[in-house]
Formats: sequence, C-alpha cells, structure tokens
Amino acid sequence: MKVSDIGEQGLLKILQRFCPSEIIGDDAAILNIDRDRALVITTDVLVDNVHFSEITTSPEDAGWRAVAANLSDLAAMGASPLGITVGLALPGDVEVDWIERLYQGMSECLQKYNTSIVGGDLVRSPIITISITAFGQVHPNRTIRRNTAKVGDAIVVTGIHGASRIGLELLLNPELGKNLDEADKQALILAHQRPQPRLDVLPILWDAMEMQHIPSLNPEFTVSGMDSSDGLADAVLQICRASKVGAIVELEKLEWQKIPVPEALKYWLNPQQILEYTLYGGEDFELVLCLPSELAEIFVEKIGDNARIIGKTTSNPQVILRDQINKNPDQVLTLNRGFQHFKL
Amino acid sequence: MKVSDIGEQGLLKILQRFCPSEIIGDDAAILNIDRDRALVITTDVLVDNVHFSEITTSPEDAGWRAVAANLSDLAAMGASPLGITVGLALPGDVEVDWIERLYQGMSECLQKYNTSIVGGDLVRSPIITISITAFGQVHPNRTIRRNTAKVGDAIVVTGIHGASRIGLELLLNPELGKNLDEADKQALILAHQRPQPRLDVLPILWDAMEMQHIPSLNPEFTVSGMDSSDGLADAVLQICRASKVGAIVELEKLEWQKIPVPEALKYWLNPQQILEYTLYGGEDFELVLCLPSELAEIFVEKIGDNARIIGKTTSNPQVILRDQINKNPDQVLTLNRGFQHFKL
Repeated sequence: MKVSDIGEQGLLKILQRFCPSEIIGDDAAILNIDRDRALVITTDVLVDNVHFSEITTSPEDAGWRAVAANLSDLAAMGASPLGITVGLALPGDVEVDWIERLYQGMSECLQKYNTSIVGGDLVRSPIITISITAFGQVHPNRTIRRNTAKVGDAIVVTGIHGASRIGLELLLNPELGKNLDEADKQALILAHQRPQPRLDVLPILWDAMEMQHIPSLNPEFTVSGMDSSDGLADAVLQICRASKVGAIVELEKLEWQKIPVPEALKYWLNPQQILEYTLYGGEDFELVLCLPSELAEIFVEKIGDNARIIGKTTSNPQVILRDQINKNPDQVLTLNRGFQHFKL
Repeated sequence: MKVSDIGEQGLLKILQRFCPSEIIGDDAAILNIDRDRALVITTDVLVDNVHFSEITTSPEDAGWRAVAANLSDLAAMGASPLGITVGLALPGDVEVDWIERLYQGMSECLQKYNTSIVGGDLVRSPIITISITAFGQVHPNRTIRRNTAKVGDAIVVTGIHGASRIGLELLLNPELGKNLDEADKQALILAHQRPQPRLDVLPILWDAMEMQHIPSLNPEFTVSGMDSSDGLADAVLQICRASKVGAIVELEKLEWQKIPVPEALKYWLNPQQILEYTLYGGEDFELVLCLPSELAEIFVEKIGDNARIIGKTTSNPQVILRDQINKNPDQVLTLNRGFQHFKL
C-alpha cells in the first residue's frame, strides 16, 4: 500500500497514532510547561514547485509567506512568538543570491513581529525544501483552541477574505488588473505576497476580556478559533466539527458585501466569483474566532473596520450560509467545497 | 555565484547574518524565557540517500537515529526534552509500511527518554525529507555551552568512541565480522543503529556539582561541552576553538586503549585504524565535557566505566594528541582531519 493509495488524510490518521491524543487537531501543539506558561509549537515544510514557485513568488515573498503562515498558527492559538528555526535543504546549483533574498524576506516578517531565527540546519538535497518551526508562548488561561466553541457564540472574522486569492489572480494574469486603480491593485497583490499574521489582534482580545472582567478563558468561558489559511469556510467548518456545533453564516455580513468592491474588479469578477474567493480563496491568514456575543461586540468595536461578526454557532450541526437579502434558500457548506452557486 | 561555489560553510556564514549573534555556535539555540527556565531548540533535516539509506538502515533505525541525534543536541546543552516536531515530505509512491516503521523507530527512542512527537507537517515532495525539531528545557544556571572552557579543565568523554563507525563497517561488509563473538558484533552494530543520547549523564553531573556545593554554573565555574556527533576530535577542537584554549589529549586514556578491543576485531583493524575511528569515526552521540578537574573526578567516578578523563585544556591554543607510552612525537589535531599516522 502506497501513500497515494490512502492520501494525505489517510496517512495523517496513521501517523497520529504516534502522537499524544490531546495534542492533535489545532493549528499548533500546546505544551503546558508551568502554571503561568504554555509553549506553542507549529511546523511547516515547503517544497519547491509544490508550495512556492518562481512564477508568482519572489524569494523575498516566499520567505515572508513561510514565516507569516507559521506566525499565523501561533496567533490562532493565542500565542506570542519566541522564535523560529529554519531547516534548509537545497541542491548545490542554487544561486546564493536567491537564498539571501529568501532569508531577507523571512527576516522582514520576523522583525515586524519582534522575533527572529534562532536556529537551523543546512543540508544538501536534490530539491529546495524549507522547514520552519515556530514556537511561542501563551498563558495557559488564554489558549485558543478549535474545539471549545459553544452554541450561541458569535463568529468573528478579522480582515478581508479572498483578497489573497484575487491578488494571486492578478499576478498570474496581469491584464485582468488593467482597469484597476494602482493602489487597489497593489493592496490586493500585497495581500497575497505579504500576508500579515494577526498577532496584533491578541492584545485587543485580552483588553476586551478585561473590560468585561473576564480574568481568563476556562471551560465556562471560551474563545475558540483558528486561522483562515485554508479559507474562511474551512475555518468555520473545522471549528464547528471540532466543537460539535453548527453555524449560520450570514452572506450580507461577509466582507465584500460590507466593504465596497473596487469598481474595476467587477469587470472580471462577478459577485458569485467574489463570494467563492471569500469563502474558499485561502491564504489570507486572518483569524476566525467564536466567542460569547457580548465580548465579540466589544472586541469588534475595539478593532474597528478590520473585524466583523459574520454569524453565530448553532446546535444544528450543519454550517449554513444564509442569504437574507436575495432570499436564496439556505446553503449547507462542506469541507470538500460542495458549494452550490447562489443567484446574486 | 552558486551554493557549490562557496560550500556549506560559506553559505552558513552568510545565513548567520540573519540570526541574533548570541545564538550561533552551539548544538542548539538557547532562549531564556524566565529566571528559572531556558528553552533549548535544535533542528535537523535528513534527506533520502544523503543522510539515510536503505542499505545500512532500516526505517526503524533511521527514525531512531534521527531522534537520537536531536536529543543528543539537547543533552549537550544540559537540557531535558519537552518534545519534538516532525515535518515529513515524501512522494506518493512511498510504502505506507515504510513510514509507519520510521515513526515506530522514532517513537521507541522518544519513549525511552520520556518524550513524544507533539506536532508535525506532512507534504508532497519528489524526495523523502525528514525535518525534526527538538526542544527541551534547562535551568539557565545549568546551561552547557561550547565557549566556556577554561585553561586547566579536565576533558571528560562518555561512552565508547569509534563503536558506531565500526558497526557501520560491519553492516557494509558483514564478512569482516565472521570471527567476532556474536554479542560483540551486535553491540557494535547497535552502537551504529541505535545510538543512545546521553541524557542520563545530566542528573549525575548535577549531583556531582551538589556534592561539591556548587549551586550553579556561572562565569567563574563552567561546564563546557558538546556532543560527539561529528567525532571525538571534532568535539575537542570545536570546544577549544570556541573557548580560545588548547588541549592535550592523552592517547593512553582514549577508550580503546583502556577497554580491551575484542580479539577478533584485531584481524581486520590494526591499532592505527582503531585510533582513527576513535578520533574521527563520528555518530557516537556521546558527550565531551570540559570541567574543573575535582568535579570531573567525582563525575567520572559516579558514572563508572562509562566515562573517563582523556586530557586537559591548555593555554597553548593547539589541540595535541600525546602518546606517552610509545613515545611518538606530539601530534597536532585539526578540524580537517589532518591526522598523521602514529606508529603504534
């Protein structure tokens, strides 16, 4: 039996038998090391031509994105970064300049978030492979997990979903952007090239909790969540599945419905495509959080335009997309992108 | 300019510019996270046919060795393990059984040292690549570094050097072992297949310090060291270079001089070859420590046969191999294995 016979998910199930069961299922592993501190660790392996490509990604951007993805996993757990290690495997014929530019991009992202490369390994290989392990710390009472959402929680998302996907489209097909305002175009391209892990959101969340006199997260009072690296729909579905709840997501509250779409975008993206990118685009590295609605409102207000409540969790285990404006029938969202087109 | 033009060392120098300078140069990175705790992190990337091979290494042994190498780096810093992450990149045509056996070997080694896989990543790649990051903790006052050896320190080594290299030779050329006692042969082969990271040595070291009423390591009182993954000579040379001292290593105190060489080994290994394997064999994953001689004597006595003092550090910056028995002239050891044969 070969890996291709059982697929990545099949193999993951087998490999998880070798891990402590309490550790599986979040964006990163959590190790409680003492009463005041948990260590959060996440690791990513990126392979040339599978996870990055010269066509759309400069080495600086490949470096930035690799680091951003890992820091985003820390943010999703509530953790602030302590550092990363970088394992680099590469053939002898790689240009030194390419590697320097890769590390330059990693460093720029790390510096922005006040952290650094603290170790690494360098080996020969027929193919460029970059392994990043990021570790951070969080107070055990502020750990954000996927499996703690409760029925009636508000679902909060940060940032703009779909922007990274549209930016990628503009990189692949520059002619699509010819009518776009230069600033709009650059913002969309940067959303793809230089995603911003939402570590900035955490202190605002803790502040909002303090305003509500909530000293810590606990079994009665939870903030559940993950990042939206695999898309907004995936994040809501993963949280609901892990927490054994469902959700109603309201179409009118999704970001592109609230934030004006640049006029020129409409020439090549109809509302249906924009909705698809919003739900399934991926790589926006925003946060999707489920939290009690009072706290959610304070939190969203503190963040400002850059976050919104898009729905709530339900006891019905399905994740439903509801369109109250156009009166489309409810739509059930699934992990395998079984997404039927709305009439918009 | 390509990587092959400047080599691994040249590239490392460039990449180190992207790391905080205080972190470079040990077996692992140290992050002081509070007054009582430092985090120690090490990472290794292993590539199929570069770092492991079906010929001499079963998947179980490849897994064990990969974990052992990382745990040995933690031991070399004085740290006890908290866990590891495993990033696995592989083609679809790899047998699932091979991967299960690899993880089985990793788990066996981890279990022996009471730790586990706490996270990972699984991706597609044209070539099997295993990235392991191990992290551990140590009290900041017990951190062992390379660059703190002082003139007059005793040099202590644990275990048997050269055994792993001889074991590899027996695996590659089984006919060489035909006259060897089966138990001797298996011990040598196991030294290669299942090296034991010397985490067991640390509590003995702390005990010896307590017996001497030394509460902690500090600028006046240091234990310096590293593991001997790249060979005994390399470890002594690296410590001396980092600490700006030299050393005299006494031939008669090296392990194969003290421990009887199995008779049958002598049929295919002359004393000269045994000495070469002892100094340069590598992959024994033992510890090489420099410490004040009184402490060294207590420490070695507590460990028993499994450790010995092989020499001392000197103000003369050279690392010298001295043969007082056969009265060979002193030999200067160098990192590039510039090793002239003694008449033995």
